[in-house]
Order: sequence, then C-alpha cells, then structure tokens
Amino acid sequence: MESRTNPSPGTLPCCVAFSQLLGLTVVALTGAWLGLYRGGIAWESALQFNVHPLCMVIGLVFLQGDALLVYRVLRNEAKRTTKVLHGLLHGFAFIIALVGLVAVFDYHKKKGYADLYSLHSWCGILVFVLYFVQWLVGFSFFLFPGASFSLRSRYRPQHVFVGASIFLLSVGTALLGLKEALLFNLGAKYSTFEPEGVLANVLGLLLAGFGLVVLYILTRADWKRPPQAEEQALSMDFKTLTEGDSPGSQ
Amino acid sequence: MESRTNPSPGTLPCCVAFSQLLGLTVVALTGAWLGLYRGGIAWESALQFNVHPLCMVIGLVFLQGDALLVYRVLRNEAKRTTKVLHGLLHGFAFIIALVGLVAVFDYHKKKGYADLYSLHSWCGILVFVLYFVQWLVGFSFFLFPGASFSLRSRYRPQHVFVGASIFLLSVGTALLGLKEALLFNLGAKYSTFEPEGVLANVLGLLLAGFGLVVLYILTRADWKRPPQAEEQALSMDFKTLTEGDSPGSQ
Repeated sequence: MESRTNPSPGTLPCCVAFSQLLGLTVVALTGAWLGLYRGGIAWESALQFNVHPLCMVIGLVFLQGDALLVYRVLRNEAKRTTKVLHGLLHGFAFIIALVGLVAVFDYHKKKGYADLYSLHSWCGILVFVLYFVQWLVGFSFFLFPGASFSLRSRYRPQHVFVGASIFLLSVGTALLGLKEALLFNLGAKYSTFEPEGVLANVLGLLLAGFGLVVLYILTRADWKRPPQAEEQALSMDFKTLTEGDSPGSQ
Repeated sequence: MESRTNPSPGTLPCCVAFSQLLGLTVVALTGAWLGLYRGGIAWESALQFNVHPLCMVIGLVFLQGDALLVYRVLRNEAKRTTKVLHGLLHGFAFIIALVGLVAVFDYHKKKGYADLYSLHSWCGILVFVLYFVQWLVGFSFFLFPGASFSLRSRYRPQHVFVGASIFLLSVGTALLGLKEALLFNLGAKYSTFEPEGVLANVLGLLLAGFGLVVLYILTRADWKRPPQAEEQALSMDFKTLTEGDSPGSQ
C-alpha cells in the first residue's frame, strides 16, 4: 500500500535524531551505572570486568545500530561512500566488541571463573561469530570488486535480514548480561527497589527502545534509499525482467 | 530489487513448517524443563509459579507468532477469514497469557514476595499492556465496521510494525525470565554445566531462533499477501494517487 518511489524522507530526520538521543543515553547510563555503583573502569584490577559491558554497549549496540542506519541517513550520497562508511562503522564496532570480549575472558581467567556456561555467554559468542562472518561476507560481496551485479542483488535481502537479526540478538544479549549482573551483584536486594536496580531496569528498557527505533527506521518502506541514476542504469535488466517496465522511464 | 507481484510463495511452506517445528519444540522443551527439574505444574501449591512460564511461552511466544503468520500462510483465502483468524489467535494468546500473569501474582502474594521489581517484570507488564491495546485498536480499525478504507490503509503499516515489536519484546522478556529462573534456582551450580542449565540455555537459543524465523517470514517482500480482486478494486483510488497506474489493468 506504500509508495516505493517517494523521495521525501518526511519525519526520518526526527526519528534518526531520536534514535541518537536514545543510543547516547544508553551509553551514558551504562557509564553512570558502572561509575556510580560498580566502582568504575580499569584494565589491571577487579574493575576489568566493567570494560566488558561498556565496550559491548558502545560497539555491538550503539555503533552497530548506527552502521545499519547509514543507508537511511545518507540517502542521497554516492552509494560507494555509504558502503565504505557502513563497513567502517561495523569494523570499528567489531574492534570495540573484541576489546570487551578479551576483557571478560581475561577477568574470568584471573579470578578462576568458568567460561561460557550461561545463556548470555552462549548468545554473546553466537552474535560475535555471526557478526564477524557477516562482515567478511558483506565485504567480499559489496566492497571487494568481483561479485557480479546479479549476485549482489540476490544476496542483498539476506544481508539486510541477517544484519538486522544480529543487531536484535545483540540487544537481547545485552539485556541478558544486564540481568545477570544485577542478580549477581544485588541478589535479594534487587527486590527492595535499590537505586542501582531501578537505574539498570531503566537502562534495559532504553536498550530495547533503541533496538526497536532502529528497526522502525530500517523497515519503513518509504524511507528506503532511492536508487541513484547509475544504479538505475545498472539494474535495467533486472527491473525489466521482474517488473516488466524500464527504470529509465522514471 | 524484489518483485512485489510475484504470486509464487517459493520456499514459504518449508519456512512455515520449520517455524512450527521450532515453536512446538520450544513449548515441549519448556514443559520438559518444568516437569523434569521444577516439579511439574499445579495451581494450589508452590508449583503454581510454573504455570507462568508455560502459559507465557504458549500464549505470548508460540500463539502470538502464529497469529502474525496467518497472513502469510493463508495467502489466497478471503481477507475477512484471515482477519478473523488473526484476531482470534491473538485473543486466545491473550487469555492464556492472562492465566500466566494471574498465576505469578497469586504465587507472589501467597509467598509474600515483592512484585514488579525486576527488568523481566517491567518488560512483561509493558508487553502485556501493549498487546491488549494493540488488540483493541486493531479490532476497532480492521474488524469492527466503521473505519474508512483510507484510515485502515494509513494505520496498517503502524499496526504491522507495532505487532512485530510486541512479539520481539515478548521473546526478549521470555529470555529474561528464563535467565532469572536459572540464576534463582541454580545459583553457583549454573557455572558447573548442570543438565538443567544446559537444557534451559538450549531452550533460550530456540526461543530466539523462533522469533527470528517468524520475523524472516514476515519481512520477506515476495511472501507478502498478494491483494485479492475485491481489495484491488477498493484500492484503485490509492494506487492511482500513489503509483500513477490503475490496478485494474493487471
């Protein structure tokens, strides 16, 4: 029922601004939680654990979400520029997440704690591996020269869906980790509405909210990136085959 | 890049069958977890708590997911039939979830436990209220006669997005609840790879998998319900206005 060719982004800038406000609040609130109630952050002490949630929220939630939004925000830039920025943001997010991963494994090793037993850790490792594979496959198809136009066109919808799924899994994994930290640290005090518990619950709701706002911007049909002139020319054969009309006539 | 008018569902039946296999496995595994490790289910004892996870997984995960899939599975049935089934499945899911909600509040009251302090409970109440409001608004717009065709067309994309979001939040809330139950019940034993912990982790991954498979079926552009003849006639004004061609010419 929606027009696919509408070039006007309407309230897109407001929604993007709202997503950024939410995302930055999530990062700030994670920092505030760790600073106010968990003693802050350091690499060479018991505070090393705290590097993990902060890096994961910055990398696998905020930056990953922003990398997904690049195609909506830069709707009228050259596709190559947008692709490079999309790949760079994901690469940057991956490196930050890697630091967060090393921090928690190193902390566990120093303390003699078991690794990879919880649902949070299983989901986390799954997300991390999928994220790396998706980045590599995406790079091979879309940035590395060689993949044909038809191959890219066939792979694109799968790339978009898998990317959005990894993002949603990342948000879910962050919520599981937050819950784990609260139950480990607060125990029975969690049920007495301790300020730390209330702050972390609010952080959890904002994390879920950020995930859904990013998903809304991604899935709005009339906010999808309109094809540029050179892409229209390249896709002529496909449009003719699948829709029975020439894109050049627009 | 994808054709919107392709009437062939391709691998849709296989994907729907896979989603049902996953969904039924999730329900069976929840039952197995409660039966094998949590003493089973009863209303008038400490086992009343166990009614909660089982009802929520059946109602707000499996049946809610299936209600979303009705428009993909019954692609060629009359729209009215599909709508009524969609509304009925959601209504049935809501009633089962209500029983699950009453069970946990009643159990907390009998035990003197605090209510609504955890992230799981905050997300759960949010999901429940949103689900009820969404059902009421959906019923008023799409089943109750009165809303104009243009109003329905404008509201439909919001209804679809909010519905999918509530479903994803439901899956996330179930994961948080599962994690909470594991940490409360197993405590330090969770890190020793107890069979209950491993089973519940697998259940968590399958829950997330069911959510993503339903989302995949919902979002595949070429699996969307093709407009029926009577809908095409009704939507003529809109298509003419937005796409500049007559749907009657197809």
